Amino acid sequence: LITIADDPRTLGELGEFGLIRALTQRLPPSPRALVGIGDDAAVLATPDGRVVATTDFLLEGRHFRRDWSTGRDVGHKAAARSLADVAAMGAAPTALLVALAVPPDLPVGWALDLAAGLAAECERAGASVIGGDTAQAPDVRLAVTGLGDLAGRPPVLRSGAAPGDVVAVAGPLGHAAAGLALLSSGLRETSPSLVAAHLRPEPPYDAGPEAAGLGATAMIDVSDGLLADLGHVARASGVLIDLDPALLRPAEVLRTPGGSSARPGNPDHAQALRWVLTGGEDHSLVATFPPGLTLPARWTVIGRVLSSQDMLANQGTPTGQGALGVLVAGQPWQGGLGWDHFA
Amino acid sequence: LITIADDPRTLGELGEFGLIRALTQRLPPSPRALVGIGDDAAVLATPDGRVVATTDFLLEGRHFRRDWSTGRDVGHKAAARSLADVAAMGAAPTALLVALAVPPDLPVGWALDLAAGLAAECERAGASVIGGDTAQAPDVRLAVTGLGDLAGRPPVLRSGAAPGDVVAVAGPLGHAAAGLALLSSGLRETSPSLVAAHLRPEPPYDAGPEAAGLGATAMIDVSDGLLADLGHVARASGVLIDLDPALLRPAEVLRTPGGSSARPGNPDHAQALRWVLTGGEDHSLVATFPPGLTLPARWTVIGRVLSSQDMLANQGTPTGQGALGVLVAGQPWQGGLGWDHFA
Repeated sequence: LITIADDPRTLGELGEFGLIRALTQRLPPSPRALVGIGDDAAVLATPDGRVVATTDFLLEGRHFRRDWSTGRDVGHKAAARSLADVAAMGAAPTALLVALAVPPDLPVGWALDLAAGLAAECERAGASVIGGDTAQAPDVRLAVTGLGDLAGRPPVLRSGAAPGDVVAVAGPLGHAAAGLALLSSGLRETSPSLVAAHLRPEPPYDAGPEAAGLGATAMIDVSDGLLADLGHVARASGVLIDLDPALLRPAEVLRTPGGSSARPGNPDHAQALRWVLTGGEDHSLVATFPPGLTLPARWTVIGRVLSSQDMLANQGTPTGQGALGVLVAGQPWQGGLGWDHFA
Repeated sequence: LITIADDPRTLGELGEFGLIRALTQRLPPSPRALVGIGDDAAVLATPDGRVVATTDFLLEGRHFRRDWSTGRDVGHKAAARSLADVAAMGAAPTALLVALAVPPDLPVGWALDLAAGLAAECERAGASVIGGDTAQAPDVRLAVTGLGDLAGRPPVLRSGAAPGDVVAVAGPLGHAAAGLALLSSGLRETSPSLVAAHLRPEPPYDAGPEAAGLGATAMIDVSDGLLADLGHVARASGVLIDLDPALLRPAEVLRTPGGSSARPGNPDHAQALRWVLTGGEDHSLVATFPPGLTLPARWTVIGRVLSSQDMLANQGTPTGQGALGVLVAGQPWQGGLGWDHFA
C-alpha cells in the first residue's frame, strides 16, 4: 500500500494511471466480481438472473462543498446515494462503478480519503467497487452506479401501494436537512450528529430486502423529501397517502438543534416538522405494507394509504398541492414540497 | 409524443420532471428490462448469470464542445464510449444508464436531440436506455454506464495475449483524431467523413462477440490511441506487441485530409501514420488471435505478439518508450503515446 494520505503531491503530478493505482489499492476486491477494476469493463456474477441498476451524480457545488465535506464524507455520500436506491427496490447492494473527475491541483490525500469513504460505505452495504472512470475537470464530480441482487424476490416498485396499506419508515427523517441548515448558518458545532447526518447519511440498506421479505407493496428512498418521494409512490400507485403528524414525531435532537427546548406549537417544533416532511438526503427507506403485519422495531408507522376516491369525496378534484397525492392529517400540506433539481 | 424539438423554452422553464418525461418519450423501452425508467432503479434480465458493466464520463469542454457537436452527436458519442467497452469484453451491449447534468438555460430541443442520439446509437448496438439521473450544472455533463451480456462465453480480457498470436483491428484507426485536427483548424468542410468520425464514432459492436467466438485471446477498444491501448494489453499479458507499418496502411481519406496527394515519405503520410498509431476515440476493437485462424474480412491483421524476452535479447532492458510494450517495425515508437487525462 502506498501511504500517501499526506502526500504533498497533486493529482496532476501523480498522473492518471498513478491515481487509478492508488485508488484501487484502497478498494478491496469484490467476491462477486469475475473481472474487477482494470479491464475495459467489470464482470459481475448475477446468479439471480437479474441485476438491479441505478446511477446518480454527486457534483461539487451542487451536492457537496469541499469546505464542508472531507474526501471521506464525499466517498460515503456518493456510495450511499446509489446504494440506497438499490435497497429501495428490495435488493441487496452488490457493486459500485465510480466515475470520478478531479482538478489537477487536488491533493492526492483528498482523493485517497474519497476512496476510503467509498470502501467504508460499500462495506456497510455489503458491496464493492468493481470499476470506474477518471477524468479531469475544474471541480470534483462523481457519477456512481449501484448494482444489486434481488435474491429471487420480485422488486418492490413505487406502483404497488393499495388502499388500506400502512406507511412506515426505516431510518431518520429531516436530520440531513437540519444538518445542512446548521452548516449553512455557520452552526456546525451545535449538533455534530445532525451535521454528520447531512455529510454522511447512513441508509439502512438491509431494511430494503427486509421490507421485500415482509411483503412491502411499494418502497422508495427519501432523497428529495418525504412528501415529494411519497408523492411519487401515490401517483405511481393511483392512491392517496395520509400522514399522521402525531406519528411523525421529530426526533428530540431535531426539535432542539440549537439546544433550546421545543414543544408543539412553538417555532422550533414547526421547523422540525418541516424538516421531517420536506428535508431530503436522509436516504431512509419508506414503504407501504399490507395492514395487520407486525413490523420489526426499526419500521415506524407514519400514515396510511387511502383510495384516491377518498379525497374526491371530501374535497372535490385534487388541485395544486393536493395533486401531489400526499396529505398531512387529511389536508394538503401548505409548505414547500421538497427538492426540484431545476428550481 | 410532445413535439418540442423546436420548443423555445429552456430546461429551467420545463422543470426536472418535465425534462425526464420528454427524454423518456424519446427512449424506446427495453425488451430486457423487467423494470425500466421511472422507479428507484432499473431491473435488467441477465439470463447468463453474469453482467458486464462499465461507466464513462462525457464532459463538455473536455470530451466535446457544443459549438462543434449537436445534441444528437453527443448522444451518439456518449453511448458509443461505454458500449464499445462492453463489446471489447466480447459481450453484446444490452443496456445503458445515463446521468445527465444540464444548465437551466439549455434549449429543450438540444436535450431532446441528445436523447434521440442516445436512442439511435443504442439501436445500432442492440441496447436500450433503462435508467438515469438528472441534475443541474453550469455545463453539460454525462456519465454513461453500459451493461452487456456474455451469452455463456468467457470474457475476453486484456491479459490473455500470447507470443505467436496475431494482432488485428476491426474498425477505422486515426479517423477521429484527423477529424478533431480538422475541427481544431477550422477545416470542418474539408472532410465531413473524418469530422463525423470524431463527432459520432461508430464502434463495430458485433465484432466484439464475434472475436470472442473466434477465440480471441485479448481485446480492447481504441479509446486512448492504438499504441496506448495495446500497451495495456502488452503489460497485462506480459508480452511485447510488434506492429507492422506496412499493414497499418492509413486509409486514403486519412492521407489526403486536405485534398492533397500523399505518398510514404511526404509529411502528410507521416501525419496519417501518427493519427493511426496515437489517435484515440475511434472506439474500434483491437484483439489478439491465435495464429492460423482465418479471420472475417473486417478484421485487419496489423502485427504480432512476441515474447517479452525477444526485446530483452535485442535491446537490453526496456526503458522509456520501450517500456510501453509495443513496437513499430521492431523499434520503440519515438512519437507521443496517446491520451493521458491528466497531461
